[in-house]
Amino acid sequence: MTSAADLRGVVPYLPTPLTAEGEVDAAALRRLCIHLIDSGVHGLTPLGSTGEFAYLDFAAKEQVVAATVEAAAGRVPVIAGVAATTIRDATRQARRWAELGADGILAVMEAYFPVPDSGIADYFTAIADATDLPVTLYTNPNFQRSDLSLDTIDRLSHHPNIRFVKDASTNTGRLLSILNRTEGRIGVFAASSHVTTAVMLIGGRGWLAGPSCLIPRQSVRLFELCEAGQWDAAMELQRELWAVNQVFARFNLAGAVKAGLRLQGFDCGDPAPPQPALKPDEVAVVRKVLERVGAL
Amino acid sequence: MTSAADLRGVVPYLPTPLTAEGEVDAAALRRLCIHLIDSGVHGLTPLGSTGEFAYLDFAAKEQVVAATVEAAAGRVPVIAGVAATTIRDATRQARRWAELGADGILAVMEAYFPVPDSGIADYFTAIADATDLPVTLYTNPNFQRSDLSLDTIDRLSHHPNIRFVKDASTNTGRLLSILNRTEGRIGVFAASSHVTTAVMLIGGRGWLAGPSCLIPRQSVRLFELCEAGQWDAAMELQRELWAVNQVFARFNLAGAVKAGLRLQGFDCGDPAPPQPALKPDEVAVVRKVLERVGAL
Amino acid sequence: MTSAADLRGVVPYLPTPLTAEGEVDAAALRRLCIHLIDSGVHGLTPLGSTGEFAYLDFAAKEQVVAATVEAAAGRVPVIAGVAATTIRDATRQARRWAELGADGILAVMEAYFPVPDSGIADYFTAIADATDLPVTLYTNPNFQRSDLSLDTIDRLSHHPNIRFVKDASTNTGRLLSILNRTEGRIGVFAASSHVTTAVMLIGGRGWLAGPSCLIPRQSVRLFELCEAGQWDAAMELQRELWAVNQVFARFNLAGAVKAGLRLQGFDCGDPAPPQPALKPDEVAVVRKVLERVGAL
Amino acid sequence: MTSAADLRGVVPYLPTPLTAEGEVDAAALRRLCIHLIDSGVHGLTPLGSTGEFAYLDFAAKEQVVAATVEAAAGRVPVIAGVAATTIRDATRQARRWAELGADGILAVMEAYFPVPDSGIADYFTAIADATDLPVTLYTNPNFQRSDLSLDTIDRLSHHPNIRFVKDASTNTGRLLSILNRTEGRIGVFAASSHVTTAVMLIGGRGWLAGPSCLIPRQSVRLFELCEAGQWDAAMELQRELWAVNQVFARFNLAGAVKAGLRLQGFDCGDPAPPQPALKPDEVAVVRKVLERVGAL
Repeated sequence: MTSAADLRGVVPYLPTPLTAEGEVDAAALRRLCIHLIDSGVHGLTPLGSTGEFAYLDFAAKEQVVAATVEAAAGRVPVIAGVAATTIRDATRQARRWAELGADGILAVMEAYFPVPDSGIADYFTAIADATDLPVTLYTNPNFQRSDLSLDTIDRLSHHPNIRFVKDASTNTGRLLSILNRTEGRIGVFAASSHVTTAVMLIGGRGWLAGPSCLIPRQSVRLFELCEAGQWDAAMELQRELWAVNQVFARFNLAGAVKAGLRLQGFDCGDPAPPQPALKPDEVAVVRKVLERVGAL
Repeated sequence: MTSAADLRGVVPYLPTPLTAEGEVDAAALRRLCIHLIDSGVHGLTPLGSTGEFAYLDFAAKEQVVAATVEAAAGRVPVIAGVAATTIRDATRQARRWAELGADGILAVMEAYFPVPDSGIADYFTAIADATDLPVTLYTNPNFQRSDLSLDTIDRLSHHPNIRFVKDASTNTGRLLSILNRTEGRIGVFAASSHVTTAVMLIGGRGWLAGPSCLIPRQSVRLFELCEAGQWDAAMELQRELWAVNQVFARFNLAGAVKAGLRLQGFDCGDPAPPQPALKPDEVAVVRKVLERVGAL
Repeated sequence: MTSAADLRGVVPYLPTPLTAEGEVDAAALRRLCIHLIDSGVHGLTPLGSTGEFAYLDFAAKEQVVAATVEAAAGRVPVIAGVAATTIRDATRQARRWAELGADGILAVMEAYFPVPDSGIADYFTAIADATDLPVTLYTNPNFQRSDLSLDTIDRLSHHPNIRFVKDASTNTGRLLSILNRTEGRIGVFAASSHVTTAVMLIGGRGWLAGPSCLIPRQSVRLFELCEAGQWDAAMELQRELWAVNQVFARFNLAGAVKAGLRLQGFDCGDPAPPQPALKPDEVAVVRKVLERVGAL
Repeated sequence: MTSAADLRGVVPYLPTPLTAEGEVDAAALRRLCIHLIDSGVHGLTPLGSTGEFAYLDFAAKEQVVAATVEAAAGRVPVIAGVAATTIRDATRQARRWAELGADGILAVMEAYFPVPDSGIADYFTAIADATDLPVTLYTNPNFQRSDLSLDTIDRLSHHPNIRFVKDASTNTGRLLSILNRTEGRIGVFAASSHVTTAVMLIGGRGWLAGPSCLIPRQSVRLFELCEAGQWDAAMELQRELWAVNQVFARFNLAGAVKAGLRLQGFDCGDPAPPQPALKPDEVAVVRKVLERVGAL
């Protein structure tokens, strides 16, 4: 497999399958992982936003990482999410995910009270120091209560373990600013809120995104067209697939991916309450979109 | 003691004393609680915003509640904070705090993805159903990613265990809207972002707030003046004490209360990193304010 | 009459009556002004938010000020709104309103691009320098794209012509911060978003607000109870009248006051399109509220 | 020249040159227009954001449109900005700009109070009905207090005169959503907040943007590379030019373009006070960026 330090391509943001009692359904997760790897994806990311990291305790997160690593079986790298409000909790997660066999860390900072840029830099540096794994910074100003400024990303890019950033801001220009500013020290991944072909054009390495769980083969095809510089063909496919991203922006992310996977025969349960499952008319929207792109 | 169901008065939002290693310092917490009770406060609230609930795991929270209940020793009610993103975690906390001897629940809803009003109502109803304790709803639109609409508060006010609301919105008119709408079914407490005398005038029952840890005697005096309808004397004192609230709005809440308590001889450590401790010039501001109101 | 420099009391924010063709209906405006003065109000404010200042050109504004001054006939002071994005336009308005006989200026800063605090101070200082009239600063962070920081208000309070501030932030504590900080140099008026009795308690001088157009006698009664220190009686009346303020927060301000005045026999037309007039079910809400407080 | 209805390419957002007294400097504007046309731009847009439309009265706007039309002399189309809070004012502008010889309308909706989608649609429809000129919708959620939803854009796209949209949201995905949804009925232009090469890739027609005033030849070269499908060469140039866009995002737009033009020998004065002119250290940043891209 490609090493996590050279990560490129389509890396689905995995949902966390839950039973009706709220327990992690490791069997469903393993089955989904194998399906995605068989479909050609280049890595797996448990415990991202789509993976409901904000709704799981430490023990549940351990189960998720362990099951993903087991299912990946060395075929693709596993980039496991670390998300916390404290340095203490974040570094504990990072060390444990490394022990469990994760190949890389996706680092998220949660916050309640605002934290100045110096504290944000301390947080991510502590994660990067905690293990030898390559770290992907993740910032999502739509849902998170802290954000990574360009100055902070630049500063962090000098850490040898901090290798990538995934930005979910919808602002494609920000990605170009990051690339220009960090001069090759950090690679950029798109999120489902970006037009991935556009991000590839400006120099991106791929995308870490929930929709790729539902359209893995189509996503890999899109990536390959971009890598080959076949931009017109890529855009033709992109225009079609964009409807899937729009569905994710419209509904609860975890709810949308779980509804779609259920339609495809991968029952991952519902989002953790009080998050709502999609309503029947919302499921119908997901069904229609998946049918249109040949994913049902 | 007044029962938690009849709560009125000054109920300090307790900080969570932490050691340099990040462990709960139960001895420091007990000592602070006894000092506050001796100063005349009418209740204690562990695990509010000021108590850094967002920075503690379940085991640490258990220690906090247990130490507070032990120190209160039945002299004043303990209103323990429940905060979670899931119903499963919230009800587990509520049941455990009841077992540990808490007299009431302060209920907070955390969120990552937006949740519709029906989900918000489900969350608070589940907490109210989980024990027989009286529940205080807490909403703080400045820091929390969900909010309680007037319609939702009205709906929840019909639950027999949901008795109070603490609103930290700075919008005093909202409190009057709540009182008018719920027609006596729910009592209102102020936060440090409100002018407490104004909230008492419009029908409030007191306040749940961090600054009262630093000025307990002055706060109790202010409450008594309000209760006696001595509004002019109350405002004279209020005008002076308001500087303490302004300090809290300006700095990290936990940082401000911990800095002030250290000056008063109650060392509660620093906020959990990466939250910053107050810098020397910020501590100087706190010192000056406390000196001016006779709290140093 | 009380001079504008000693302004206290109930000062309605007047709507701007418009014909179906969008012309100022000066006759309707004069008739409303006389009704309000006969009802006991202490001043009149044309060209505030409720007066749709953002929807009128210079010539229309001139007509509004002239008609209000004529109708006031020296019985109460007229505090005329100046609102612009440029210093050039603002000072031109101020000088012209003074020529037309206005007794004071309500100063609003509009903005498209953000302006630093120094530019905001320049703007208000230029208005204060333009005439000898007393100036009331008006800040409404809900609708305006610039805001007055506490530091800027403090700085401006040293100008001899800058006498008052009207703050529409809903944050009552901010008003106390202003009063404490400016040490008597500046008086504070409430907006309809504040509980006016609470603002009077903390030291306010009255209120500049749209709802007073609909309930002038009740508003004057409330002011008198506050002035007499009869806080319990004031709150009893306040609780009832608050429903009128809630209606204003819920609907378009200009739409709400115009709908209510039409019900009371003062037809002021509709808000300038594309602002919507209230729909029949919304008018029914206004009617019900006015009936409940004895204003219909 | 290309007709305004077939507009493609680089269309600079013109600044409005102002004298120290705040009068429009028509001579400076004409000189700049001729320079830009000689540099190969495909159209001119007076009275956009960069043109300080929010700081000019009707008479000043008339002068701007007349001077631009005169300088264009039929060599390139002039797309004149219409911006107002009322339908009455907007349609008056549109009709007058048509009389003055404008070739197209750039339509902006200003607002003070929120307006529902139906009112927004009414506003833009009225502008489109007012003349026979092709209309470009302009939405900038960063500065404007109304926004165009996808549903509203779709609805408006059926009007025969509504031909284009310029979106300044930074959200490139939103442009793809508009293109997919309107199925060819409406063309999309980028703003300076977008990576223009990325917008061209997804199907854009060019850009209406302030920076093109400073780098017209480079912008035209970039457009030609995109049109030729030479995406790699385009990105090489784009990466370099992006620094100019970043400067615009960092400083006041009008201030940045006026500072840069002064360095290039086109003195357009300063932004209308109280907007600040760029400070010497900020001018130095602009100078450095322009030197790096060969524009000084």
